[in-house]
Amino acid sequence: MHNSDVPTPYLRIDTDRVHRNVARMATYAAKHGLGLRPHTKTHKSLWLARAQLNAGAVGLTVAKVGEGEVMVDAAEDVDLLIAYPALDPARTGRIAKLALRTTMRVAVDSLQAAQALAAAAGAAGTTIGLLIDLDVGMGRTGVPSPTDALELALAIDRVGGVRVDGLFCYPGHIWDQAEQQDKSLNRTAERLEEAISLFDRNGLDRGIVSGGSTPTAYQSHLVPQLTEIRPGTYVFNDMNTVRGGFCGLDECAAAIVCTVVSNAVPGQFVLDGGTKTLTSDRCLPDRESGHGHLIEYPDALIARLSEEHAQVDASRCTAVPMLGERVTIVPNHICTCVNLQDAVWWTQPGGQLKRMAVDARGRLS
Amino acid sequence: MHNSDVPTPYLRIDTDRVHRNVARMATYAAKHGLGLRPHTKTHKSLWLARAQLNAGAVGLTVAKVGEGEVMVDAAEDVDLLIAYPALDPARTGRIAKLALRTTMRVAVDSLQAAQALAAAAGAAGTTIGLLIDLDVGMGRTGVPSPTDALELALAIDRVGGVRVDGLFCYPGHIWDQAEQQDKSLNRTAERLEEAISLFDRNGLDRGIVSGGSTPTAYQSHLVPQLTEIRPGTYVFNDMNTVRGGFCGLDECAAAIVCTVVSNAVPGQFVLDGGTKTLTSDRCLPDRESGHGHLIEYPDALIARLSEEHAQVDASRCTAVPMLGERVTIVPNHICTCVNLQDAVWWTQPGGQLKRMAVDARGRLS
Repeated sequence: MHNSDVPTPYLRIDTDRVHRNVARMATYAAKHGLGLRPHTKTHKSLWLARAQLNAGAVGLTVAKVGEGEVMVDAAEDVDLLIAYPALDPARTGRIAKLALRTTMRVAVDSLQAAQALAAAAGAAGTTIGLLIDLDVGMGRTGVPSPTDALELALAIDRVGGVRVDGLFCYPGHIWDQAEQQDKSLNRTAERLEEAISLFDRNGLDRGIVSGGSTPTAYQSHLVPQLTEIRPGTYVFNDMNTVRGGFCGLDECAAAIVCTVVSNAVPGQFVLDGGTKTLTSDRCLPDRESGHGHLIEYPDALIARLSEEHAQVDASRCTAVPMLGERVTIVPNHICTCVNLQDAVWWTQPGGQLKRMAVDARGRLS
Repeated sequence: MHNSDVPTPYLRIDTDRVHRNVARMATYAAKHGLGLRPHTKTHKSLWLARAQLNAGAVGLTVAKVGEGEVMVDAAEDVDLLIAYPALDPARTGRIAKLALRTTMRVAVDSLQAAQALAAAAGAAGTTIGLLIDLDVGMGRTGVPSPTDALELALAIDRVGGVRVDGLFCYPGHIWDQAEQQDKSLNRTAERLEEAISLFDRNGLDRGIVSGGSTPTAYQSHLVPQLTEIRPGTYVFNDMNTVRGGFCGLDECAAAIVCTVVSNAVPGQFVLDGGTKTLTSDRCLPDRESGHGHLIEYPDALIARLSEEHAQVDASRCTAVPMLGERVTIVPNHICTCVNLQDAVWWTQPGGQLKRMAVDARGRLS
């Protein structure tokens, strides 16, 4: 299908840019001897997960079990990490079922989660690998200190049906604290080093030390304790990564194509994409930058969203689009935008677009 | 299925409360001789649209053509209004196709939209009704003044294939300016009166004067020019309507059931619903109130969301939930939350839950 035939708002993927982004991260990881375990929450696409595996990824990361149930089909014996403290009975049984098919690991920060997973693994006749989630400054999940990580690992080590495979951290606070990146990387390295030393002294396995997200991905070699990284956003990028200084606008591979549907209010035009397309997610490094970046009219400010409308302040524009014109928005946060689409449109040679399903859309549990 | 068997996070609908909300609005509209044309963007459910029609609704409102293509099946000859300036070729042909089956109207604020719809109607051999969108203070869409409304209506009146059926307004700014409600209602009444008088003097049809949204719905009789109202949120309500003073917490019929998945960080617990479940939408009448209201722990503050995590500040709580416990959140904005779900769960007699599809989910165009 051609661009002008696809009803707006739709999400367009620049296939060449995706391949460049996938290759660049794979090359970086290989150069530094790091395992690359891309987080599939960004794209939720089997096709793209396969492209990442073909480029050398050691396995895949998922947030929820439902995503794992989709991504297990990405390849024969795909190695899956659920980067989420899955502990309730509605999840643990499903994880054990997946563990019968392939290598499954889960990041945990409580003995209760380990026990629940062990019980499910035991009932299914399998084992599940666990990584101990250590907080490195975000304060979301993860035990507070390396000593707590050791204590939890030792307690889990006495539980059958699960095995401690190493450590896990997520420095997600970097997204909105880009200027403190160096400090945070040092802190992460110190805490991991301390935990590793405690694990070693107590004979615990720490074969995997899993970290990283897109903002710090290309600085991962500065945290030599890491054995693998889990970036997600890098395949597409968005205004968070651009304004955070982590990539250029020409590395953004995903954009929302919208139509101008109203210009009745002076100094403004209105697009057919609102919070049900762009989400209300603010740009973390610059909260006053509006609801995304309008490629063709870079001086326009996407000032306000309703569910299905974007009100664009055109007061600083030298030219404004016509009614019915199509324009392109790089969103603030691509992961949540992809999550709203049943399918996205990939550019093809010759200017055509190909529809591909967002396979794990709606897999919230 | 029972509550404890449905994987979290899931969206639970209190069926009794929905019926009460539907009946209350229907009774109000009937008492004041107002047509009720519920906006289906909130629920996107054929079942609920039928319940609204059975309770006396004169027709249905949709935001996008794709929603109309679903809702046209709600009843034989259902009367549909697209409350959206649909003007591009990807939409107008589909509207004309719907107009062959049922009564279709579209709100417009440009001659170009009217001409595009007329061309599509002409090609299909049908007609489309138009309502002139008049801005009453929100500054989103709508012509700026009653004189502009008259001019647009007169210009459209000369175009074949479409007919002017009346006026349209949307006082959406009331959501975050609750204290100025009276002033805004008066202003709406004045502007509509002026437009009606201009229409009458020029022999234009203004049989329909369509307005209203949930916040002001029960004050609609204070704008005597209105012939019909289009509330959407009232079927479920949310923290916007509660904190705006438009309903009580016991009139909220939709909530997100979540599981506590971590309590490793002191003073905090973490739930398995983030922006991919609750959205980033802030509570418009109280932007500092967090990301929804936790029913069982009303002193808890849902302070921060990631895509799949809610970090809950428990520092003001006398009791905190256990790991694995299920809790219930009334979200800030229910319309965008429903839009994330492929299906929602309706309470049934005896404590069971019934899964029902969100029929128009993802119909963004």
